[in-house]
Amino acid sequence: MRILGIDCGSIRTGVGIIESDGMRHSLIYTGTIQTNTAKPFAERLRVIHENILQVVTTHQPETAAVEEVFNHANVQSALKLAHVRGVAMLAIAQAGIPCNEYSPNAIKLSVVGYGKAQKHQVQLMVQTLLRLPEALASEDAADALAAAICCANHQGFQNKFRKS
Amino acid sequence: MRILGIDCGSIRTGVGIIESDGMRHSLIYTGTIQTNTAKPFAERLRVIHENILQVVTTHQPETAAVEEVFNHANVQSALKLAHVRGVAMLAIAQAGIPCNEYSPNAIKLSVVGYGKAQKHQVQLMVQTLLRLPEALASEDAADALAAAICCANHQGFQNKFRKS
Repeated sequence: MRILGIDCGSIRTGVGIIESDGMRHSLIYTGTIQTNTAKPFAERLRVIHENILQVVTTHQPETAAVEEVFNHANVQSALKLAHVRGVAMLAIAQAGIPCNEYSPNAIKLSVVGYGKAQKHQVQLMVQTLLRLPEALASEDAADALAAAICCANHQGFQNKFRKS
Repeated sequence: MRILGIDCGSIRTGVGIIESDGMRHSLIYTGTIQTNTAKPFAERLRVIHENILQVVTTHQPETAAVEEVFNHANVQSALKLAHVRGVAMLAIAQAGIPCNEYSPNAIKLSVVGYGKAQKHQVQLMVQTLLRLPEALASEDAADALAAAICCANHQGFQNKFRKS
């Protein structure tokens, strides 16, 4: 199954695609959408949406995973993030694929085995699980792939459960 | 000038378009996008975005106004609203028109003359200012038109200021 993972951010949005049989995962695409903070916010949302749609059109994922928006200490940051998440979810719906949502803890638990793992631990495990020659330079890209891997693990588990 | 106003909501989103010379306003379009709460949220965002784009394509506004997202008592509601606002702002950017943001107080002050006006007072003033034979049935549609009227008043004031 081909899975799209998105790590939303108003400055940088990570996008990743993996191919997975529920046990073994391989990297198909990884990228970071960087927006120009000097531009109006609506225009930055347009750039994020356009780039996600382009990746989806090129790589044709069958399902998608995004991190649940959690209550940041900073409410304004959380609200900004929710705008970006809105256009990411829109792109997923426009692609006609399901949008699976996972909490940050569920993603870390699924990828690292520990719900309160640090960013660099997530990066390292994403590198290991996808058998990459080196760590991903971007934390956002690693987080997007981590969401996709979490989705792959859940789907794999659900399929096993259905079969048994 | 033709102005689009949007009142974002995850269940109902009001959309309105007015024509204004900065002093006198007339109604071009009013509508409410109602989404099916039984559908996934991503799909509801798709419906809202599609409907706004359709109105924009049909009526070709030159500028747009949306209410600033304020800190609701309920953070989860504010976060949901911010997703909708994201796709509304995206539609505005895709139309290539400016997205003007006003606080709820600024809109009420501009339309009713009192920043803490009640919903029904806004509805009544929108009816009066647009010379409508009866009040708008939908509060959301009235709020969308109120945002557009606030924008018209601001633009009118700015133009006067530039001329003087």
